[in-house]
Amino acid sequence: MGEVKLIGAWGSSMTWRVQMLLKMKGIEHEYVEEDLANKSPLLLQHNPVHKKVPVLLHNGKAIAESLVIIQYIEETWENGPSLLPKNPYDRAVARFWAKYFDETCIPAMLKASKTAGEEREKAKEEAIELLKFLDNEVKGKKFFGGDTIGLVDIALSFGSYWFDIISEIVGLELITKDKLPNLCQWIDEFVNHSFVKENLPDRGRLTQIFTMFLGSAAK
Amino acid sequence: MGEVKLIGAWGSSMTWRVQMLLKMKGIEHEYVEEDLANKSPLLLQHNPVHKKVPVLLHNGKAIAESLVIIQYIEETWENGPSLLPKNPYDRAVARFWAKYFDETCIPAMLKASKTAGEEREKAKEEAIELLKFLDNEVKGKKFFGGDTIGLVDIALSFGSYWFDIISEIVGLELITKDKLPNLCQWIDEFVNHSFVKENLPDRGRLTQIFTMFLGSAAK
Repeated sequence: MGEVKLIGAWGSSMTWRVQMLLKMKGIEHEYVEEDLANKSPLLLQHNPVHKKVPVLLHNGKAIAESLVIIQYIEETWENGPSLLPKNPYDRAVARFWAKYFDETCIPAMLKASKTAGEEREKAKEEAIELLKFLDNEVKGKKFFGGDTIGLVDIALSFGSYWFDIISEIVGLELITKDKLPNLCQWIDEFVNHSFVKENLPDRGRLTQIFTMFLGSAAK
Repeated sequence: MGEVKLIGAWGSSMTWRVQMLLKMKGIEHEYVEEDLANKSPLLLQHNPVHKKVPVLLHNGKAIAESLVIIQYIEETWENGPSLLPKNPYDRAVARFWAKYFDETCIPAMLKASKTAGEEREKAKEEAIELLKFLDNEVKGKKFFGGDTIGLVDIALSFGSYWFDIISEIVGLELITKDKLPNLCQWIDEFVNHSFVKENLPDRGRLTQIFTMFLGSAAK
């Protein structure tokens, strides 16, 4: 299937989404670590619009945006395990939730992590209200994808491990058992899934990196 | 293929995206007009997350978000004309630009339309910089989809007819020949495409509706 390169950044949950799928499908690829503080000509050439990782290069052709890349991989390497359900309706539902988490939930969660006092309380309540839809969606299921990990689980990875570290650094309690019980259970299942567990970035190093960015934020 | 209903709102460019594809593919459906000022139990039941149109109901199952609906239609009714390219790479590129327009360009364009004075000038320059990527993308082509209308053309419909009306109401000059020549040419091709032209909502009525919402905004 030709040459595959992934331009990514260590610790980036968006890069991780793509790495997981490449590993799941056993797609041989070269990983190119990007220095986000000093962006490379390779990144700027291939993602001039957003200048962000991840970028997938397949035979020299670039694809950006993790959810777009994931669909490209699914449609190009159709064999092997898949994150996307076979049924068009289930696929539409998965796309809807992945989009919802990226566009609506992540900004709200980050806002809560970056604010303080009353402003944080308000942002926290707003984020919880938004996440309740996902809490309800995963109720009675092991994963959003059912018994196996699917697109929504991979899309929500930031909400599990990454956001837990951020919350710890800034002293935020947002995803709690009393407010979002099913999401808490999902996080537990997700981070302890054998394939996920062995591929999560080191917590200590990730804490150091996030502390650099967030350490001075509200506590 | 069962019962198809579309919950939409007259004049909504997001509803229009889905209507165009249903018409293109000749999919029989019932159109249900939603009163956005007094949302119906039907809408709230089927899109409790966003409470927005359009919502497609296929045999009673709901799908929301126009770009998600379009992909569902493409994957469910595979016969007939298609908005999505056959090639996975071209499909990824189309998804990238549609997402870019929705998430990045539309908010910037609306900001320019809702501000005044120096703030508007700044917002305008920012929106132009973002739109330059799309201007470059359509350079030398009739449509984003090539010789025929594709996903990006339909996604950008708001940037053609709808935004032209908004610009007229609020006295904004944003998409101009000197700054965005290829996009201007695309708008001309798009709104004069026979299928598009005969399906555009009435300009007078759309002007009235937008004036109600925007009339009091900065001029």
